[in-house]
Amino acid sequence: MALINENYLKLQAGYLFPEIGRRVREFSEANPNKKIIRMGIGDVTQPLSPAIIKAFHEGVDEMANGATFRGYGPEQGYDFLREAIAKNDYNDLGVAIKAGDIFISDGSKCDTGNIQEIFGNDNIIAVGDPVYPVYVDTTVMTGKTGTISKEGYYSGIVYMPCTEANGFVPELPTEKVDIIFLCYPNNPTGTVATKEELKKWVDYALANKCIILYDAAYQAFITDDSIPRTIYQIEGAEKCAIEFRSFSKTAGFTGTRCAFTVIPETVLAYDKAGKSYSVKPIWNRRHSTKFNGVSYPVQKAAAAIYSTEGKKEVADTIAYYMENARIMRESLKAIGYTVFGGVNAPYVWVKTKGGMTSWDFFDKVLNEANVVGTPGSGFGPSGEGYFRFSAFADRENVLDAMERIKSL
Amino acid sequence: MALINENYLKLQAGYLFPEIGRRVREFSEANPNKKIIRMGIGDVTQPLSPAIIKAFHEGVDEMANGATFRGYGPEQGYDFLREAIAKNDYNDLGVAIKAGDIFISDGSKCDTGNIQEIFGNDNIIAVGDPVYPVYVDTTVMTGKTGTISKEGYYSGIVYMPCTEANGFVPELPTEKVDIIFLCYPNNPTGTVATKEELKKWVDYALANKCIILYDAAYQAFITDDSIPRTIYQIEGAEKCAIEFRSFSKTAGFTGTRCAFTVIPETVLAYDKAGKSYSVKPIWNRRHSTKFNGVSYPVQKAAAAIYSTEGKKEVADTIAYYMENARIMRESLKAIGYTVFGGVNAPYVWVKTKGGMTSWDFFDKVLNEANVVGTPGSGFGPSGEGYFRFSAFADRENVLDAMERIKSL
Repeated sequence: MALINENYLKLQAGYLFPEIGRRVREFSEANPNKKIIRMGIGDVTQPLSPAIIKAFHEGVDEMANGATFRGYGPEQGYDFLREAIAKNDYNDLGVAIKAGDIFISDGSKCDTGNIQEIFGNDNIIAVGDPVYPVYVDTTVMTGKTGTISKEGYYSGIVYMPCTEANGFVPELPTEKVDIIFLCYPNNPTGTVATKEELKKWVDYALANKCIILYDAAYQAFITDDSIPRTIYQIEGAEKCAIEFRSFSKTAGFTGTRCAFTVIPETVLAYDKAGKSYSVKPIWNRRHSTKFNGVSYPVQKAAAAIYSTEGKKEVADTIAYYMENARIMRESLKAIGYTVFGGVNAPYVWVKTKGGMTSWDFFDKVLNEANVVGTPGSGFGPSGEGYFRFSAFADRENVLDAMERIKSL
Repeated sequence: MALINENYLKLQAGYLFPEIGRRVREFSEANPNKKIIRMGIGDVTQPLSPAIIKAFHEGVDEMANGATFRGYGPEQGYDFLREAIAKNDYNDLGVAIKAGDIFISDGSKCDTGNIQEIFGNDNIIAVGDPVYPVYVDTTVMTGKTGTISKEGYYSGIVYMPCTEANGFVPELPTEKVDIIFLCYPNNPTGTVATKEELKKWVDYALANKCIILYDAAYQAFITDDSIPRTIYQIEGAEKCAIEFRSFSKTAGFTGTRCAFTVIPETVLAYDKAGKSYSVKPIWNRRHSTKFNGVSYPVQKAAAAIYSTEGKKEVADTIAYYMENARIMRESLKAIGYTVFGGVNAPYVWVKTKGGMTSWDFFDKVLNEANVVGTPGSGFGPSGEGYFRFSAFADRENVLDAMERIKSL
């Protein structure tokens, strides 16, 4: 008799974004004439830039010709892309990450979920609260938790509240934890961590033999040079941190699909007897057994992000989105909302007024302003009473959405 | 203290294909002037066909323009591709698979590995022997097995010998099993299963509430109309079988990456109390939480396989490879080898002479003929004494390789 993985039965009914999609679809079907402005799912709207498109086409053309055709590539990604990443994203900052430490993948959602597979089920996972739901759901799926409480917390996970009081950077856990998810610039709160704050976490991880899973998907939106762009700018992180990066938001790759994971050889985990193992070869075994590499033309397109033209074009697009964030911050502040984030991150985290719940605010904004945002409580109980607006939108829609919300 | 998943420590040192890669690299570095002919990893050599390239470019062009740009797509794949698959691969054969039963992915290696995650660790997995190593390695990684024996068998897996005596189609297991991997046309033996043989498996699965994981990655190479192209041509399979398909070998997508998994709603699995669950929504939860869809231009390219021109072009390429298989079969027979497969499948399964081991034959053929094949024992102990040649090669290389082996 084929048995299901009963851990899946512990999961909440809907993953956040499909649930938003369902409500928007229902509203849209009932109101076919209303123009909905989507600032919910955090999906980019600007097209791929010319340098990227050119390289993408060149990659396709190579596939048309027997002499240049590419079949199976290295599961870890082509050297041309791994080397461009190592140089531009790390070495140029003085960080000694090697091309061989970089694993190209088709998305950070995949990577932050899949990484769980190489760690044993006796690990205690710590997450921020609110948090990107994938970290929690994939922890549940692998069997590292018990069931969910009425308040929305799974037993076996340590939730670290990120609140207005602590500036949305959690305190070090007082309970024993083994693996810690951190995400800066943060999704959903749009806040960043300083070097001092990250150093506190790295020191904690080293002292307790923990691993930090550092999601830096939004690093390209950092405008303040004092904010670390990679956790490897913190001394000691190369011994305890795995970093996740994505081209999705950096260069508009949400529909093109390319990302990467960085694991220096010096990152260690342990067996139950306390013997240490380098994590990189274990991830390499997982990656090469369960994955077959990213589409070659997509890797060509991704490498173009690091060309002279590509860098400039990508910077222009990021500036465009960050101007959206500025407009949203200021507009919402002007009408009396308390607003966080949106300075070094593409997300604006808004406190609802009068203690309104996040989903009530979602429904109100959808029904009355026809604007889609993301309810903060969808990211965890401490997100209740907050709402996330994404700066990934066309300018006229941002202006229009702010006007509509103003007149609510 | 971060703990590794100790199941990874049970894995054999090298996944088969990286090990082949290592030996070929070493030979190549020591003999830089020798021209190596690669018929080992089963990678295609013919470029993407014109209709596919055209659609691929069109997809890229859509990404260049704000009005046609695509961000996140449906995790399950675009309807235009799911509908083309349902119609052409199933409905046209009289099989009632719906577009909604199809999950587009980036590879069958990924899918056959990932599917294990939604089944509990108390399942007994049955595999053919020899077998595609990914099924076994991913079973080990999830923790469904004990350690490996001296003979190369993991405890907790039921191995079903596929031998010359049973025509490489295994007998029904006498032990209790819960989930059964079948692959036809078979990798590595190149053999096929008749309708009668598959019906025997479907009836067994229904009687024992088992699930069949049916890998049909090579169905496009079936030339004999009496051989089933999908397991859903067998009555009852819609209640017990999950099918995996890939465009890798069908249309040269090994470096482009697109595949799919089919799960009808009527496929059931159970909790330990015996309550039944439809497997499809559980897979959908896994797929939408841990995966973000296939690159849009790649899906456009894949859909072109089903256009009138695409179908013709793909058929021509398959005919080219099958002519390679015919040449290999006949050449190897002519010099006294016993040969299986290569009629409805792109693999030729050769018995070594004089009881030579598979890896000894690999080294001999590599060192003396500079031809790379795949040692049968790499697919499991019952593959010992066999060798797999892949028909995925340029014609002149096939002719050259056969000449070289003849003069050994």
